[in-house]
Amino acid sequence: MTNKDKRSPTMKDVAQLAGVSQTTVSFVLNNLSEAGIPQETQQRVWAAIEQLGYRPNAMAQGLRRQRTNTLGFVTDEIATTPYAGQILEGAQDAAWENDKILLVVNTKGNPALEARALEILLDRKVDGIIYATMYHRPVNPPKTLRDIPTVLLDCFAEDRSYPSVVPDEVQGGYDATKYLLEKGHRRIGYINNWNDIPATVGRLQGYQKALADFEVAFNENLVYMELNEVESLQGYDGAMHLMQVSEPPTAFFCFNDRTAMGVYDALRKLNLSIPKDVAVMGFDNQDIIAAYLYPPLTTMQLPHYAMGEWAVRHLIDVLDGEPNSSPVQHRIECPLIERAST
Amino acid sequence: MTNKDKRSPTMKDVAQLAGVSQTTVSFVLNNLSEAGIPQETQQRVWAAIEQLGYRPNAMAQGLRRQRTNTLGFVTDEIATTPYAGQILEGAQDAAWENDKILLVVNTKGNPALEARALEILLDRKVDGIIYATMYHRPVNPPKTLRDIPTVLLDCFAEDRSYPSVVPDEVQGGYDATKYLLEKGHRRIGYINNWNDIPATVGRLQGYQKALADFEVAFNENLVYMELNEVESLQGYDGAMHLMQVSEPPTAFFCFNDRTAMGVYDALRKLNLSIPKDVAVMGFDNQDIIAAYLYPPLTTMQLPHYAMGEWAVRHLIDVLDGEPNSSPVQHRIECPLIERAST
Repeated sequence: MTNKDKRSPTMKDVAQLAGVSQTTVSFVLNNLSEAGIPQETQQRVWAAIEQLGYRPNAMAQGLRRQRTNTLGFVTDEIATTPYAGQILEGAQDAAWENDKILLVVNTKGNPALEARALEILLDRKVDGIIYATMYHRPVNPPKTLRDIPTVLLDCFAEDRSYPSVVPDEVQGGYDATKYLLEKGHRRIGYINNWNDIPATVGRLQGYQKALADFEVAFNENLVYMELNEVESLQGYDGAMHLMQVSEPPTAFFCFNDRTAMGVYDALRKLNLSIPKDVAVMGFDNQDIIAAYLYPPLTTMQLPHYAMGEWAVRHLIDVLDGEPNSSPVQHRIECPLIERAST
Repeated sequence: MTNKDKRSPTMKDVAQLAGVSQTTVSFVLNNLSEAGIPQETQQRVWAAIEQLGYRPNAMAQGLRRQRTNTLGFVTDEIATTPYAGQILEGAQDAAWENDKILLVVNTKGNPALEARALEILLDRKVDGIIYATMYHRPVNPPKTLRDIPTVLLDCFAEDRSYPSVVPDEVQGGYDATKYLLEKGHRRIGYINNWNDIPATVGRLQGYQKALADFEVAFNENLVYMELNEVESLQGYDGAMHLMQVSEPPTAFFCFNDRTAMGVYDALRKLNLSIPKDVAVMGFDNQDIIAAYLYPPLTTMQLPHYAMGEWAVRHLIDVLDGEPNSSPVQHRIECPLIERAST
């Protein structure tokens, strides 16, 4: 199937050859262990992928003739908000190491601005595009991206038609909880987010999985998910609420570091000391907050830098036509950053 | 002097015609009221500027023939750090309103990367350049910028050879202190930064000026400027120190919101309530921190968005060859954001 004249194999071809549904192929490509696909089926799918030489989207586009050594970096709001700048830092470092320059356009998610930005970048013949979002979520990439090698960063297409890199939310939630369990905590309050996004679902799943591994029964009274637009107030309310249940938590796992800020305020209000009376674990390792809180916050780091780096390196591999055995959705581990709050 | 063949007038020509030094011309151009230049001299300088048709740098370059409707935005680290993203937001909104796209390159202040980025942007025929830094400071703009209309954003060239926009640090320090004085405070601790940057000097100057206007003697024992790399710890140490002087402050003015975070921790440690026992005023109105602290922080806003907007609009005016009577250094007011800590 290396002959360029032949029709490129599709996901449907892979599914037919392996004797599975396209959904199953997609799960395997995306390394979704949660989907519970038997090892043997997974192997059959990978064999079909190899036999057909199937490559989703960008990978199939191979070498472009004229290189400009510029890459377009199109994002909703990474460059303007204080949350995920390290994504751009990692992408930029990887680009520069490879003697390439990133041209960044921040679109605020405005479709007209996005379309115009892509047009301009394509006119200027960037070699490829990184399409990045401020937080991990599904996206509908603009159609123009079909015409140029593209890697999705901190987001993914529902049909997995583009390679993407995202944080491993389940592992993050699991490792955070496991760490608290290993410290001896058995009543761990979890103040979760309320949006239907991969982080909300994945971290809770990891929390539950770790409890199960330590044979601690899941107690839904210890999970707080009420809506509050201001995350620190949500943390404050959540901690106040959970400290009033009959057997209150000895540790809090917080959806993010802003939530943990609010938990700190609540525990101070209750004259409880961190970590002596109650331990607090955040998520994000957000610049400014995590290290600046008092006591400094133990937290799971969102692998922003590593994701940015991976996306650019992967895009360059695609441009160089290098074979790549990564799943379409590459998940990067969230490391635990231990400070003084646990 | 509208004849294009004539040599463009220089700052030296203006100084000679007005019978003053180039420094004086520079002070007048930059609207430096602190410099104390007599009104009459200022008028003479402006008359000379008008008579000669003097325009510093970019202004002199007039219309370029071929427009691409793209502007280059070159920055050290605005896009990657969590401090000044609103600069880019304002610039981007102003660009988009004018049907222009910003191509952003974040260079980490790496001169090789910066040179390369400018080369690429000039090759791609951007109409002009915004050269922006993450915090207000003097810069040596790369020589390439001589070849293209340029506006400096949140920075300035020492010789004022480029138009620039910066925050009004003196006004910010003045208004913060005046507000606390009007609330009845007479012992106002100031926890300042230790770097020799315009913010350190300007805010202190504003603080002193406000005290003088209210006939409160400046007490250097109430100013804390010890070095601590972590600003929240500096705030913590500063508040602990100042609360031990014989007549401790009833209010703190903090160099920035991170410093204020540390002051909050110190006051809590001392079982003092904010604002009942001690008021706290920040600076920056930093996203995440200021509104998320408990109680939410009263602070001076760095006019990041407004500066970004001004820089792009000014650059577009320059490109359109519109007469512009702004001083070379345009200073934007820092508004006071009142919340619950004062």
